[in-house]
Amino acid sequence: MTVSEYIFDFLHSKGCDTVYMVSGSSSMWLTDALCRNHDMKAVCCHHEQAAAMAADCYGRLNPAPGVCLATIGPGATNTITGVAGAYLDSSPVFVLTGQANSRLVQYQKATGIRQHGTQSLLLDNMVSPITKYFCCLENAQDIVQVMNDAYQAAMSGRKGPVWIDIPIDLQNKQITVSDGVPDGQSAPFDVVPPSAQMMQQLLDAKRPLILAGAGVRNGQAIDLLRQLSDRFDIPVVTSRGGIDVIPSNAPNFIGRPGSYGDRASHFSIQQCDFLLILGSRLSVSTTGYYPQRFGLHAYKVMVDIDQKELDKPDVPVDEAVCCDVSAYLTEVLNQLPSSPPAAWGQWRDHCVALRNQYPTVLPHYSHETPLNSYYFVHLLSTLAPNNANIVVDTGSVCNIVSQSWELKEGQRYLISGGLSAMGFWAGILGCAQLGRQLIALSGDGSVQMNVQEFATIHYNHLPVKLFVFQNHGYMLIRHNQHNYMNDRFLGVGPDSGLETPNFCKVAEAYGIKSCTISAGDDLSSKIREVLACNEAVVCQVEVQIFGDLAPRIASRVMPDGSLKAAEFDDLYPFLNQDE
Amino acid sequence: MTVSEYIFDFLHSKGCDTVYMVSGSSSMWLTDALCRNHDMKAVCCHHEQAAAMAADCYGRLNPAPGVCLATIGPGATNTITGVAGAYLDSSPVFVLTGQANSRLVQYQKATGIRQHGTQSLLLDNMVSPITKYFCCLENAQDIVQVMNDAYQAAMSGRKGPVWIDIPIDLQNKQITVSDGVPDGQSAPFDVVPPSAQMMQQLLDAKRPLILAGAGVRNGQAIDLLRQLSDRFDIPVVTSRGGIDVIPSNAPNFIGRPGSYGDRASHFSIQQCDFLLILGSRLSVSTTGYYPQRFGLHAYKVMVDIDQKELDKPDVPVDEAVCCDVSAYLTEVLNQLPSSPPAAWGQWRDHCVALRNQYPTVLPHYSHETPLNSYYFVHLLSTLAPNNANIVVDTGSVCNIVSQSWELKEGQRYLISGGLSAMGFWAGILGCAQLGRQLIALSGDGSVQMNVQEFATIHYNHLPVKLFVFQNHGYMLIRHNQHNYMNDRFLGVGPDSGLETPNFCKVAEAYGIKSCTISAGDDLSSKIREVLACNEAVVCQVEVQIFGDLAPRIASRVMPDGSLKAAEFDDLYPFLNQDE
Repeated sequence: MTVSEYIFDFLHSKGCDTVYMVSGSSSMWLTDALCRNHDMKAVCCHHEQAAAMAADCYGRLNPAPGVCLATIGPGATNTITGVAGAYLDSSPVFVLTGQANSRLVQYQKATGIRQHGTQSLLLDNMVSPITKYFCCLENAQDIVQVMNDAYQAAMSGRKGPVWIDIPIDLQNKQITVSDGVPDGQSAPFDVVPPSAQMMQQLLDAKRPLILAGAGVRNGQAIDLLRQLSDRFDIPVVTSRGGIDVIPSNAPNFIGRPGSYGDRASHFSIQQCDFLLILGSRLSVSTTGYYPQRFGLHAYKVMVDIDQKELDKPDVPVDEAVCCDVSAYLTEVLNQLPSSPPAAWGQWRDHCVALRNQYPTVLPHYSHETPLNSYYFVHLLSTLAPNNANIVVDTGSVCNIVSQSWELKEGQRYLISGGLSAMGFWAGILGCAQLGRQLIALSGDGSVQMNVQEFATIHYNHLPVKLFVFQNHGYMLIRHNQHNYMNDRFLGVGPDSGLETPNFCKVAEAYGIKSCTISAGDDLSSKIREVLACNEAVVCQVEVQIFGDLAPRIASRVMPDGSLKAAEFDDLYPFLNQDE
Repeated sequence: MTVSEYIFDFLHSKGCDTVYMVSGSSSMWLTDALCRNHDMKAVCCHHEQAAAMAADCYGRLNPAPGVCLATIGPGATNTITGVAGAYLDSSPVFVLTGQANSRLVQYQKATGIRQHGTQSLLLDNMVSPITKYFCCLENAQDIVQVMNDAYQAAMSGRKGPVWIDIPIDLQNKQITVSDGVPDGQSAPFDVVPPSAQMMQQLLDAKRPLILAGAGVRNGQAIDLLRQLSDRFDIPVVTSRGGIDVIPSNAPNFIGRPGSYGDRASHFSIQQCDFLLILGSRLSVSTTGYYPQRFGLHAYKVMVDIDQKELDKPDVPVDEAVCCDVSAYLTEVLNQLPSSPPAAWGQWRDHCVALRNQYPTVLPHYSHETPLNSYYFVHLLSTLAPNNANIVVDTGSVCNIVSQSWELKEGQRYLISGGLSAMGFWAGILGCAQLGRQLIALSGDGSVQMNVQEFATIHYNHLPVKLFVFQNHGYMLIRHNQHNYMNDRFLGVGPDSGLETPNFCKVAEAYGIKSCTISAGDDLSSKIREVLACNEAVVCQVEVQIFGDLAPRIASRVMPDGSLKAAEFDDLYPFLNQDE
């Protein structure tokens, strides 16, 4: 068995069935081993950036890691944005790259010469900051241990990408695999039971609230969260990473707090007296700009698998518990009485009333011309099926969709959370699963960043429904330059140096069906038609070029040139003092 | 004056007049300062990869560094491939990126947390391997020194990119600039005169040869090289990086050696008895796979500005001189007699005869159907004007064009040399210069890697003539899989998972004129028409899908799975022993 053969056999044994790749000379034995491995499917992308994003999404949707195969040098560096995104969003991905001859790699490492092998770059320093494990293989036989170690790293604790760089002279070397592929299991984690104080505080609380993040996707945590919420009338808000841990129609779901959030969840957080933070790292985009006052009146318990997130001083939590959310919730449920304290139901009703009082999508949005993006997204979400994998790109689209998408039971909702990389829509390439609908939403600026992948969609007959919000540039940056730069615009639209194409025409050039949706159309029937199509459709949505983004935490420029943000529960557009 | 204002004032004072950028929130004060600086032009690209490649090309063509402005996180990582290319090809580039608040950066650095600031990645480790200087600004006032140090690094010795990462809280801070912008000069270099032994060996030689590389572009070296060659009948061969240091019709120009080279230059190198290697790092793609036998019979003097390249043990040179080529040649010319030794003219004639005997573009190529790429390139090169900036993309196209382009006096010829990054054609965005024609050549696979830049070309009315060799995939990798994998193809064309679009249609979708050229057309008149057009044209050239690449150093797979290459002067297709 060769090194390359072993790699794909190993990955297949772990449940991987697809590799997202761009071929190249310096990865030729890897490519050939993949070609000869009939258990693994190759999806050939047109840029390694998209291949890495596809592998990221695959890693989030499946029990096995995503796999990205690229060649030396530029092939490797082209994946970096995608890999960084997977790292920040805790997605397990194997990156496999070809490398120059070992001898040349060693020389370059020893001397610091700019380059020795053709196309070669040394990757260790470059990619270690964005991976959980990196190895440039030095001996063929090591691959057995390396794959095992890499797998452990990718799948254990807080998940993330790993990277194996394989010199060309080792790719086709024979190795001895005495015991077959080792059956490496991800390392077990310590279970930390809830403290007596935590349980006491919870039971004494009148207004408990759960903030659920991406960490709730591990193990059985989603089911346990629902049990906890449903049985004990505890309202739930979700961070961006946790949007798909609870459907929008769950009786206790209140909203999605953040810089672009909603009033109900912000009021709930500031009014609650117990806040259970599950698998959310409390990023600024969740907590706003005054984290020390986030959930100010609550006893705060934060449960996370990553100790470094717990050590972060921003939000002063009362208990920081390093534990898998699933294991922790099991213990909490075991220790709770059979029914909730009387006050909890009343509080839950109050939060639900807030939700009903302050919808994100306002009634008058439906009448606006051009089309209001919030209204369109809301409508699309009511028509999208339960079995949909939804990928949402970065920029204003991410804010709008995350604020207004009514998530149905069974839907998966993927964004580029920590990195917020434009072009993330192409992650939909990694979302193909039997019987599931593929929906991507992006802005025209972001579509451009991976537009070459229209070819991949077409060739592979992926029935992707890509909704492109045609707002003629980078709308979020336009808002930014409007708010802080007195309307000095640069690089945000046709008025300032940047023009995006008509994506219907681009789609047609790539052989993909397209259509346009504008205000005045019978929106529901057009959306239904797109969703019902059994092939790919690029649907250009003619939305407002400079539509308002609301509610949001607004900032203004101070005399010294710095920015000052509003309070967490004082969202723009500002309410009267009474409200 | 703010930090951001200072940065662009400084760059303008150094001669920079254009910034290649993608806008973003975390670089907003930088963007705004650029917007308000009326001496600097912004070219807004649609992917930072292209912006970096444009800045790379700008840095090669102008006396000032290229400038690339990007935002935090994904904006920064998207530039990496382009920056790595500039590093390997010694192009001075300033990369400016927005970064999270300093406090968050410091915390992330101290703790190793995956991320603290929104979208933030710590760049130090990631980009230090591909830059000459990196600084994440810590104090606003430091920017004066930082810009100066960065400029010195970019422009001194072996040039290369520098990177300044500027936290959002510092971008708009006021600084005191007491003495205006400092007038930093690039550091002087030591002049090493030719050794007595070198001069003796040269004068005793019967068959001297010059191998000229990219280092000959510095200072007056091009003129001095021509003087040396013309006055003393010394034949010249060029590496890929040095293609445009001598026109193809120069009386003593012989050819371009390399893995994809030509017989005349290879024979000359193996027959010469004195080899003066000027500003070429002797990469494997120049020397072939047995560097210890490269110029085996010659006394070899290697002159380079980078000591690390001189220390490389591959080609055993007799003298390794760390010196600017221009300074060295001045001394050599001073020490030479007024006329060459008698034997030199005869040797030069022999080399020229070799050149005439073994042309790269064979007569029968002109009759082939579909179109032979070598023939097409040769024809195009005879019709291209002297005042052309030519950017050639990676892959088979780079080999074909570099083997067959007849370079005219005045033309600039830019490739992605060390990195060989696909998508490099978009570097043409950085080549706009008054009165010069913009010609880019690329393969269909490589065009895809930056196809979003069609929008930049269209919006900016850049009259780029992009010739796309439509060979339906990655032809170089197809050859590779044919030669070494017994025709097991993966990811190289429509037969194996990868299909590129019709670029005429894509161009039209982006509002760019297009045309197709195929065998049977009146090629010359079609090419003339494209070149005469005063706006951009994408010209799809319907070439052979699997055309031969020749001459080249062929390799074959050995029984143990390794590759064995042929000798440097035994090019495929192999000649008879007599020849």
